[in-house]
Amino acid sequence: MKAIMNRRSIRCYTDQKVNDEQVKTLLEAAMCAPSAGNEQPWHFIVIRDRQLLDRVPEYHPYSSMIKQASLAILICADTRLSKYDVDYWIQDCAAATENLLIAVQDLGLGAVWLGVYPRQERVQGLRRIFNIPDEVVPFALVPVGYPAEHRSGENRYREDRVHLNAW
Amino acid sequence: MKAIMNRRSIRCYTDQKVNDEQVKTLLEAAMCAPSAGNEQPWHFIVIRDRQLLDRVPEYHPYSSMIKQASLAILICADTRLSKYDVDYWIQDCAAATENLLIAVQDLGLGAVWLGVYPRQERVQGLRRIFNIPDEVVPFALVPVGYPAEHRSGENRYREDRVHLNAW
Repeated sequence: MKAIMNRRSIRCYTDQKVNDEQVKTLLEAAMCAPSAGNEQPWHFIVIRDRQLLDRVPEYHPYSSMIKQASLAILICADTRLSKYDVDYWIQDCAAATENLLIAVQDLGLGAVWLGVYPRQERVQGLRRIFNIPDEVVPFALVPVGYPAEHRSGENRYREDRVHLNAW
Repeated sequence: MKAIMNRRSIRCYTDQKVNDEQVKTLLEAAMCAPSAGNEQPWHFIVIRDRQLLDRVPEYHPYSSMIKQASLAILICADTRLSKYDVDYWIQDCAAATENLLIAVQDLGLGAVWLGVYPRQERVQGLRRIFNIPDEVVPFALVPVGYPAEHRSGENRYREDRVHLNAW
């Protein structure tokens, strides 16, 4: 609960490196997410290569913080793993991304969820940079680092969004 | 992290009532989720009325456990609150639903994510039962109760889903 309530988007990072054990913890959390029929349609690209990271802003207008980040994780959906005639993979990958962000907070790291899908210019651009097959959709990009800014948790609870028994 | 790693779908519940304070904690967690441009497009219907709960399986084929549940929370998207020309609200509501499920686990309760959107027969049916306006989309339904089954956490980490720097 503490990690959920204190999580905020962090866009400034120090030079300190995020290590492989931390990355594995983040990926374990992401892969523990529920998915429709437990289809687990996700893949993850861990991006540490500085040249590749620096190319992302060519295709994503709000990603300049990635140049400071120790790494980024690109959550992808392999649509071939989808079991259903409707696109539950969007929800599945969003749940995995949220788990990853909560784990980031729990480890004392900072990150921000950059929306990729369904913006086609971002999807196509990231496919090109990271050599992603056509059946795989780059869904969301999460730069990760040690926070160089402090943002307090924000209670966003709004009573007017809660209804009892009916709308 | 413990709540993330131990969360499983729970479909059997005891008679014990989930109280209003617990429900508020669940909703606080849900509303702390990130959303595109912080649009927070969500509404929540807390369903405690037994007659309404019992009607859900008429429109949702996998919801029979709701007859045992102390309550259910219907996560809805108000598409009028969406700021963008693309549907980020699906991802926003999925992140809120995942936060809610982790909070359920943290409180020692049990729940299951029942997919509603984009199945139109479920969307229309729940709109009817809960008097939901046309611009609002019932997104996911989460029955909540005290667990009457124990399911251990499952580490779903798969090395073959992880790529370094490129696909």
